[in-house]
Amino acid sequence: MDNLTIEIGKALNNIKEKKPLIHNITNYVTVNDCANVILAIGASPIMADDIDEVEAIVSISSALVINIGTLNKRTVLSMSTAGKMANEKGIPVIFDPVGAGASQLRNRTTDFLLEQVKMSVIRGNLSEIGFITGFDTKSKGVDASDDDIKNSNACEIAKKASEKFETVVAITGEKDFISDGNKTIYIENGNSAMSNITGTGCMCSALIGSFCGANQNMIICAAGGIASMGIAGEISYENNFSKGFGSFHIGIIDEISKLNSNILNERVKIHEI
Amino acid sequence: MDNLTIEIGKALNNIKEKKPLIHNITNYVTVNDCANVILAIGASPIMADDIDEVEAIVSISSALVINIGTLNKRTVLSMSTAGKMANEKGIPVIFDPVGAGASQLRNRTTDFLLEQVKMSVIRGNLSEIGFITGFDTKSKGVDASDDDIKNSNACEIAKKASEKFETVVAITGEKDFISDGNKTIYIENGNSAMSNITGTGCMCSALIGSFCGANQNMIICAAGGIASMGIAGEISYENNFSKGFGSFHIGIIDEISKLNSNILNERVKIHEI
Amino acid sequence: MDNLTIEIGKALNNIKEKKPLIHNITNYVTVNDCANVILAIGASPIMADDIDEVEAIVSISSALVINIGTLNKRTVLSMSTAGKMANEKGIPVIFDPVGAGASQLRNRTTDFLLEQVKMSVIRGNLSEIGFITGFDTKSKGVDASDDDIKNSNACEIAKKASEKFETVVAITGEKDFISDGNKTIYIENGNSAMSNITGTGCMCSALIGSFCGANQNMIICAAGGIASMGIAGEISYENNFSKGFGSFHIGIIDEISKLNSNILNERVKIHEI
Repeated sequence: MDNLTIEIGKALNNIKEKKPLIHNITNYVTVNDCANVILAIGASPIMADDIDEVEAIVSISSALVINIGTLNKRTVLSMSTAGKMANEKGIPVIFDPVGAGASQLRNRTTDFLLEQVKMSVIRGNLSEIGFITGFDTKSKGVDASDDDIKNSNACEIAKKASEKFETVVAITGEKDFISDGNKTIYIENGNSAMSNITGTGCMCSALIGSFCGANQNMIICAAGGIASMGIAGEISYENNFSKGFGSFHIGIIDEISKLNSNILNERVKIHEI
Repeated sequence: MDNLTIEIGKALNNIKEKKPLIHNITNYVTVNDCANVILAIGASPIMADDIDEVEAIVSISSALVINIGTLNKRTVLSMSTAGKMANEKGIPVIFDPVGAGASQLRNRTTDFLLEQVKMSVIRGNLSEIGFITGFDTKSKGVDASDDDIKNSNACEIAKKASEKFETVVAITGEKDFISDGNKTIYIENGNSAMSNITGTGCMCSALIGSFCGANQNMIICAAGGIASMGIAGEISYENNFSKGFGSFHIGIIDEISKLNSNILNERVKIHEI
Repeated sequence: MDNLTIEIGKALNNIKEKKPLIHNITNYVTVNDCANVILAIGASPIMADDIDEVEAIVSISSALVINIGTLNKRTVLSMSTAGKMANEKGIPVIFDPVGAGASQLRNRTTDFLLEQVKMSVIRGNLSEIGFITGFDTKSKGVDASDDDIKNSNACEIAKKASEKFETVVAITGEKDFISDGNKTIYIENGNSAMSNITGTGCMCSALIGSFCGANQNMIICAAGGIASMGIAGEISYENNFSKGFGSFHIGIIDEISKLNSNILNERVKIHEI
């Protein structure tokens, strides 16, 4: 068992011990699943997006997850206000730039939030991270298109993004790449069938937030959230995929709730590059 | 196997081949299920409702679904803006007038949207379609009341609505009637127990949107979405209803994801009148 | 079988017979589950929050449930407007002060709503009800913290809150206490594992709303909703908890839909103090 695996196992145990409160300003499509996976991994979710309360909610929370899936003018201001408060208070901010590249509003918003708020972890698919880093990947709505996956080098973009934003950046897809500019990790868990369920990306970011709320090492937190989601997805695939996508979906939440450091040790496929 | 069944089977295969992006401006009650059934049938969902991005999102999408389930002033303007852009670009617009008849706001909004936007398919229950067509059916919130079902002639109203709005109109209920003014189709799939799950109507409209995003013949698309929902509902009823409504609900999404032209051929009960 | 149990059984049957329409102004995290449990117990949900239609929707409804889980300025005004209309029309209002104590906005909002609207039932956890009653319990986001549970006397606070607000107040937790100022009831159904699923509190309030929409005796309605949720939770725990939290969640909705007065009679642990 390598050091990365041991550290992720410890980080998972820390979530269950500390039960950190995770503040989410997120989209209304996948918000229920995000709250439920945060509970399933052992943390506690709070969803609050009115500008008049986000600072108060940040002040009682251990991490903030910002997800722009169904952004609007009202919530974008809440995101920046909450993010600045989190920076001031010194709690980690996880950023999920859903659909970056798909509209000028999303592009302006990601630029704005990345300027206003120091992010601790940025997680997206190749299109999204490519876009915010300045690479010209074609955006097909909120999902990475096949061409992107085939033609680009996710590893390289994760590294460059982490240098540009001076933080941990994760690109999830068939393989997941996580870089902090110095170290780059890749993870081979998960299953391409997971893209058939809405919100597996959002849930992954919510899990990273849960790790960040209970631990210090941000690249380990990003790897922990991504490995947890991948392992849950592959076990649910084995147990439920033949029943259909609804059962596969519910099974992912089941497996997150049963995940522990033993299952993680047996299943995780993680490497430092 | 009749022509309608063959055409619907081909249309279903086209979704799986083309994986069209379906833009939804919809309610926050059933939005997760709508996204998941769009994925389950083989298309790709995007939910976006800020007026500053709906035109950009329409411009990368293959169909637009407008659902007024939890309408508010902000999203109604986004709906009309998106709808006009979809008309300009020539992509189909599917309209689900949830709860039409239940409040003046819903009534004004349906009138406004029907004036501003040329709809390709309108789907609702008997109360809703009766209302927008000018028939005095009693509205009991968002669900058709029993009296409506018993006393009205859904077939007749579907025809009249399709003449009035010069488009395909579908009334779903115990039996489903779909008319384009010339041709009228009825479908006998589905199960009355489906009304025990919130959002089966919304999911049906999302499936119609998926068909419309990959196919040209709008009456076939409406019939395809409705038949798919009905077949999934009846198979899930057989397999899961005794377990309870939660399992029945998840099972519907399971069966949408397993639907193919063979199952459709075996199960569909479709007739031209 | 004692009188309370008999009355709750009758009240449950009344829901199934009358199928009351329940208007919900609620949060976007758990709204789908709330709609589905309302259907599962035999009532009919409508979710509508635009200020231009809430009075119309109240006027066709049999009860109004106000839940501030993801409150914002727009919806708070809709809540007070709808609540005042419900008072005028004489239909019950159920109030769920989610996260009261966690931010000034929530505190001001609960004060405002409790001033503007006469509530028929208030349901929350110990932190929330303690806060609105003026007891200094520590708030940890939206969930009651362990210290609260250990150190406070939920029974006493329920009584005091019911005297202060001159209405039925329920504090749910490991044990549930319901008081109308004169009579106090406690219920021992349910399972602490239910706090691992987001929205079990919200669903409980939605079930209370379903009882209130079909019955007159508000303390029986509160007890009925709470007992129903508790029984569904404990049966689902027995059947599903080992599968994981996703299955446990879906199983709760399954059991609500299968609940009847026989199961209620066998399972309910209810006592008058």
